[in-house]
Amino acid sequence: MSSDIVEQVLAGERRAVARLITMIENDGNEAQEALAALYPYTGQAHIVGVTGAPGTGKSTLVNELAKVYRRGGQPVPSPRTVGIIAVDPTSPFSGGAILGDRIRMRELAGDPGIFIRSMATRGSLGGLARATADAIKVLDAAGYQVIFVETVGAGQAEVDIAKTAHTTIVVQAPGLGDDIQAIKAGILEIADIFTVNKADREGADNTVMALQMLLDLDHASRPILHHGVVMQSGQTGDSSQEQRWRPPILKTIALHSQGIEAVVEAIEAHLIYLKESQTLHRRERERIESELNDILQEELMRRLLSRVKEEEWDELIERIGRREMDPYSAARELVEEGRCV
Amino acid sequence: MSSDIVEQVLAGERRAVARLITMIENDGNEAQEALAALYPYTGQAHIVGVTGAPGTGKSTLVNELAKVYRRGGQPVPSPRTVGIIAVDPTSPFSGGAILGDRIRMRELAGDPGIFIRSMATRGSLGGLARATADAIKVLDAAGYQVIFVETVGAGQAEVDIAKTAHTTIVVQAPGLGDDIQAIKAGILEIADIFTVNKADREGADNTVMALQMLLDLDHASRPILHHGVVMQSGQTGDSSQEQRWRPPILKTIALHSQGIEAVVEAIEAHLIYLKESQTLHRRERERIESELNDILQEELMRRLLSRVKEEEWDELIERIGRREMDPYSAARELVEEGRCV
Repeated sequence: MSSDIVEQVLAGERRAVARLITMIENDGNEAQEALAALYPYTGQAHIVGVTGAPGTGKSTLVNELAKVYRRGGQPVPSPRTVGIIAVDPTSPFSGGAILGDRIRMRELAGDPGIFIRSMATRGSLGGLARATADAIKVLDAAGYQVIFVETVGAGQAEVDIAKTAHTTIVVQAPGLGDDIQAIKAGILEIADIFTVNKADREGADNTVMALQMLLDLDHASRPILHHGVVMQSGQTGDSSQEQRWRPPILKTIALHSQGIEAVVEAIEAHLIYLKESQTLHRRERERIESELNDILQEELMRRLLSRVKEEEWDELIERIGRREMDPYSAARELVEEGRCV
Repeated sequence: MSSDIVEQVLAGERRAVARLITMIENDGNEAQEALAALYPYTGQAHIVGVTGAPGTGKSTLVNELAKVYRRGGQPVPSPRTVGIIAVDPTSPFSGGAILGDRIRMRELAGDPGIFIRSMATRGSLGGLARATADAIKVLDAAGYQVIFVETVGAGQAEVDIAKTAHTTIVVQAPGLGDDIQAIKAGILEIADIFTVNKADREGADNTVMALQMLLDLDHASRPILHHGVVMQSGQTGDSSQEQRWRPPILKTIALHSQGIEAVVEAIEAHLIYLKESQTLHRRERERIESELNDILQEELMRRLLSRVKEEEWDELIERIGRREMDPYSAARELVEEGRCV
């Protein structure tokens, strides 16, 4: 059955793609064999992260971007297939926001060149980031050429998604706390492109200016830091060939399809930059390293816990609760007891 | 040296407390011995999480709450010592927001009964949540009676902090996207107390009403769900004694010290509820379980990686990058190669 689903995904069969992603959501382990078999066929897609606070109009923007890629013509000469993964890490218990997205995206659903999927959190955030990375692989192996990963909210979740994406778009909107304080420091490090959506609203120019100022400050005062890697200014020159990319700030009114082509142009320009500056290779390496770490952690825990009896575990928790034992010693004991994992 | 610092922390020496928290921030492992020795002395403090978006005035609120606890008199008959830990998980690279908090909190710094500390992210979010949990233990063992843990932003970070806290206050403010959409679904599950701060601003009553409506909906339509544990309605009656707590919604103007006593009253009422309904015991169990899981994961990874040579690791990453190998098989190989960890 596993080899069946692999062949079907490689043939681009939508139902197989959907089924495998559901397997990933329910239990990472079940899908591992298929993911391992699909892995050689991945690495082809351009992965574009789109992130921003609720109310910025991210979903509408993604819809419009997808339409441009599907349509072909300027700025993308021939149409490309598009995968969309909508993730809401801020809502670990209910899928409210995701439902709304799904309804909004229905207008795209008739197009066989588009695959849309919402991902819900079952377990921890780590679990969701991992599941999203695996879902991207499935769409990549199935032949989708551009994959949008849409995430709500700020914080670590954004950073995790940015690590997975080649190009990250940060969507802002005027009037949602448009003072400089509300624009998070962390956002500068993950944004490759800024979009000020709902640009017909009052305050759009202030938002653009605030971002511009932040970028100026950032470029002037800090070592070149992108995706967590500090570069010495000397390094930028001859040896590494890595030039700096200054994130463009683009105004859009996604609801009226305005300004969308310029964003697509910026996405394409960023991909060229990534390739020419060899940043793509570095980012891929970082991504693989962090993914291998996650998989290792899971594998080790799975093996350890499979050896521990439930009563034993419960007893341990109670003893720690009574402060008869500390959790560090308990962990060491559990690991050493088993010895071989 | 480790036993020295343990004694000094137990004696409440501020410099030892600060030093141990720095050790925790820099490298969890270095501090483990001391934390293990302090562990029997923990479990005394009331841990209060305070969370909300930037601009809601969280820090000012925490300052005011701390003052009421320090002052004594109504609603807290005798003064209590207060620890404050400010965490900003949305800013993994720079400590901008935290710096602001630190300046605002300076007015409390003269009081020997208050200990204030900002925590920065060095590594992953997981790392920060773990470091925060350990810092809480240090303050707890040092004798601080009420420990406020202040976090910026929404999302998984909030949920993680809520798991650590006994009582979680969610701070909202009017005008920061006060429509119902902006109030995240996840927030209902973590809030024990809602505060609508900056209540002199336009729209404060709308924010209160929106929260009220969400609580009504939540109470009417859903199984009793709190901190991720679903309870059957039958269970609520005789057997488990767990009654429901309906989060109060309180208006404050922290900048003018208005409405603060009511929040302190609610915090105290919630602690009594936790004890009487045996919810405290359940939450403690959950907290210990998730902490033991984290420590185990770290310990296993540490042991595994200590056996893998750097060249070996780099070579593996390159091979995965060239798609000659998939990360799942690579992880299995690494684990099985070592066999005994």
